[in-house]
Amino acid sequence: MKSRRDFLKKGALAGFSLAMLPELAKAVVHEQNGLTATKINLKKDGVILFQGDSITDGGRKRDSNAHNTLEQLGNGYALFTSTQLLKTHADKQLKIFNRGISGNKVFQLRDRWEQETLAFSPDVLSILIGVNDYWHTLTGGYQGTVEIYENDLRTLLKHTKDKLPNVQFVLCEPFALKGGSAINESQWFPMFDAYRRSLKKLADEFSAVFVPFQSAFDEALKVAPARYWAADGVHPDLPGRQLMADVWLEATGLGK
Amino acid sequence: MKSRRDFLKKGALAGFSLAMLPELAKAVVHEQNGLTATKINLKKDGVILFQGDSITDGGRKRDSNAHNTLEQLGNGYALFTSTQLLKTHADKQLKIFNRGISGNKVFQLRDRWEQETLAFSPDVLSILIGVNDYWHTLTGGYQGTVEIYENDLRTLLKHTKDKLPNVQFVLCEPFALKGGSAINESQWFPMFDAYRRSLKKLADEFSAVFVPFQSAFDEALKVAPARYWAADGVHPDLPGRQLMADVWLEATGLGK
Repeated sequence: MKSRRDFLKKGALAGFSLAMLPELAKAVVHEQNGLTATKINLKKDGVILFQGDSITDGGRKRDSNAHNTLEQLGNGYALFTSTQLLKTHADKQLKIFNRGISGNKVFQLRDRWEQETLAFSPDVLSILIGVNDYWHTLTGGYQGTVEIYENDLRTLLKHTKDKLPNVQFVLCEPFALKGGSAINESQWFPMFDAYRRSLKKLADEFSAVFVPFQSAFDEALKVAPARYWAADGVHPDLPGRQLMADVWLEATGLGK
Repeated sequence: MKSRRDFLKKGALAGFSLAMLPELAKAVVHEQNGLTATKINLKKDGVILFQGDSITDGGRKRDSNAHNTLEQLGNGYALFTSTQLLKTHADKQLKIFNRGISGNKVFQLRDRWEQETLAFSPDVLSILIGVNDYWHTLTGGYQGTVEIYENDLRTLLKHTKDKLPNVQFVLCEPFALKGGSAINESQWFPMFDAYRRSLKKLADEFSAVFVPFQSAFDEALKVAPARYWAADGVHPDLPGRQLMADVWLEATGLGK
């Protein structure tokens, strides 16, 4: 009976097996987003911008204004996503930028939005923000709440859409890996889940692509522990960065 | 008539179209290697070692003995191949090393083979060598010939197989991109093609996986010029590194 119930439980990929590992991203996106979800349309010379916190930043050189370079893309998921985009869509001659900054919360994105986002006039704007909006309430004395997170991000997205009516949003689910060294489970869950739900709600409101990173890592943890994917539970290591790239490409419909 | 002849011409993927771009690696490997080619078997805790020249080296930190780290893998195709391997085969807990060294020719691999290859007892040994064996005859006063390249590499492979009877070889085709800034076509072709043929011959002799990099770049050049894939024609830029990773994974059967 138990296995039958597990199989029927929504949102758990309970039928997951090792054989599915190569197709994990596809399975998770299919289950979370369905077949009719928003996808991204790329145009020739299109501009793609990755925004976010340290996970996006990935140690990039901040004094570089180049696009498509290793230095400027950093070495996080934005790099591994970008190399696939540049390879698969070589005919499009894309221009890809990264402006993630370590430690950022939503209000810090807002502070630099005009210069570091709107000025690029991105055709595709990918945002991963939220883990610090919760984490820093535990460790940094930050007074924010999930309502502030959701409302500030909604305002920011609305402002962006006003200025760039044709922008296509990719909204990435913030995530935390149980078993990671920085994740005290009783402090993080279920409170952090509310941030994920807010992000999903905003993705629906703005007809954005939703990238289900938490669901992907939850499945990945069935195969190998947090120390393999993201030792501290927040900042992915190489296998976790590649998994994120796969999920981003699957969710946007831009993978091979 | 011409298009019909092109279509029939062996080894040219003459039916290539932009729609095939996402599947370029698969199409090239299928055409070059066929369906019955050698593939790689991975075992739990398996050791994979990348050997070669600057293209493999990729700016790695040479004082690092770690495995699976960004510093040690560098930022060439070995990195982009490894992140996929680590993600897709997370259940295998692979240990991946890179010991490519910039400027190397076959005899220089031989000089450091005991310590930097055999000592790792790799289960899978991937070798990309040959472009300098030709290039340095043009620019560096090197006196080698294609016969020396082939014979030295055969001796090295035989020695390796004697010491590590269960090693699985992945032999990568050396390549040069027409239109690259360092490639004077009349100096390089057709002489350089002989090195590629020697490598293919050795792959067959040793029942190795053959990775058709030249064929892949030849197809990629139909979509975007050399400056997009590898500006100097020898050292791939980010899109070219990802293409190499894709082709390596497809040829070995280890991709998703």
